[in-house]
Amino acid sequence: MTGPKPRRGLCLVLAAPSGAGKTSISRALLAAEPDLHLSISVTTRAPRAGEQDGVHYFFRTRPAFDAMIEAGELLEWADVFGQRYGTPRAPVAAALARGEDVLFDIDWQGHRQLRAALPGDVVGVFIMPPRREDLVARLRARGDDRDEIARRMAEAEAEIAHAGEFDYCVVNEVLADAVATVRAILQAARAATARQLWLAP
Amino acid sequence: MTGPKPRRGLCLVLAAPSGAGKTSISRALLAAEPDLHLSISVTTRAPRAGEQDGVHYFFRTRPAFDAMIEAGELLEWADVFGQRYGTPRAPVAAALARGEDVLFDIDWQGHRQLRAALPGDVVGVFIMPPRREDLVARLRARGDDRDEIARRMAEAEAEIAHAGEFDYCVVNEVLADAVATVRAILQAARAATARQLWLAP
Repeated sequence: MTGPKPRRGLCLVLAAPSGAGKTSISRALLAAEPDLHLSISVTTRAPRAGEQDGVHYFFRTRPAFDAMIEAGELLEWADVFGQRYGTPRAPVAAALARGEDVLFDIDWQGHRQLRAALPGDVVGVFIMPPRREDLVARLRARGDDRDEIARRMAEAEAEIAHAGEFDYCVVNEVLADAVATVRAILQAARAATARQLWLAP
Repeated sequence: MTGPKPRRGLCLVLAAPSGAGKTSISRALLAAEPDLHLSISVTTRAPRAGEQDGVHYFFRTRPAFDAMIEAGELLEWADVFGQRYGTPRAPVAAALARGEDVLFDIDWQGHRQLRAALPGDVVGVFIMPPRREDLVARLRARGDDRDEIARRMAEAEAEIAHAGEFDYCVVNEVLADAVATVRAILQAARAATARQLWLAP
C-alpha cells in the first residue's frame, strides 16, 4: 500500500500456423508497446545482408551453439532444416528481474520448452486464422504454388492441433481487433497478482 | 476454423477493502461493457424503498434462504450482521452456458466459495487503494467518524491480507486507468483458450 509498484516481467509468446497473420500482429504490437521487446535468438545460420550480430540474431557456430545447450544456457531451441535456433537464457532472466516484458516468436514446441524453463513467467497466445479458406488465400497471395500451399496447410493443421496448450486463443479476423486483444492480454498479464513483487508476503 | 466462435461465459469478481473505489469501478465497467451483467443476490433483509424483487435482489425469508443452502442452490453466501446474502446458482449457470459474463461484487470469502463452486469459471480481481492514507482520506470524505475509520481500516487490512488469492490485483490510483485495466482483464479472459468451446477436442 505504498509507493511505486515493482513487478516481475513476463514472456509473451505468439505462435500461429503460417499465414495466420502473426508477423503483422507482432509488428503492430511492438510499435504500440514501447515497453515490450522482441527476444533476440541465437542461430547457427549465416547472417544475411544487413543482419547484425546482437541485433537481429546472435550468430554462433554449431559447436558454440551446442556448447550453450550443454551448459543449459538456452531456454528453448529447435533444429529447422539443419540450422539451429534458440533463446539465450541470460538476457531473458535479466529482463524479467528488471520488470521488463519480452516477446517471443516461436512455435508450440518452443512454447512448451519455455514454459518448462520459466514456469509462471510465460503467457502463451495462439493466433488462429478465422477460416481454412482464409489461410489458403493468404498463402496464395504470398505467391506460394499448389504443392507449397498443400505442404503449408498440413503444417498449419499440425500447429493448430496444439492450440489448446496456449493460455489464449485469438482469432485474427480483423487485424486491428486481434492486435487490441493481444494488447489486452498483455495489460491483464501485467496486473496478475503473481507478478506483483510488492504484494509478496 | 469456421464461422462464429461459441465460448463459455465467465464470472468476474471484483473485491476490495471499503474505500478503495470498487463501486465507482463497478459502475463504470457495467456502463462500458453492455455484455457484462451484475449478478442479482438473494437476501433475507427487508427491501428498502424502491427496491424490487428480482431486480435489485431476490428477497426471501430466512427459512426460504436456508432451504436454498440445504438444496445446494447457492454458489456462495454469507451472514452480514444477522442478515444473509447469497448468489443463486441457476441464473449464473444459465448465463455461463449461454456465453454471457457475470459481474460479482463480493468479498474474499464469497470469492473463495465461488471458485470452489465453479472451478475454471471465475476471474478474481482485487482492487487495491494506492496508499494507506488515501483509504483514510476516502473514508473521511464519506463522513465516517474516527472510530468508524479505525474499524474500517482494520477491516481493510484484513481484506488486503487475502489479495494474493485473486488472479489480478489492480491499484486504483486513477479511476479511468483502473477501469481500463479491469476491462483489459475481461477482454483477455474472454479470449482464454479454456473458454473456446469451438476449440474443444
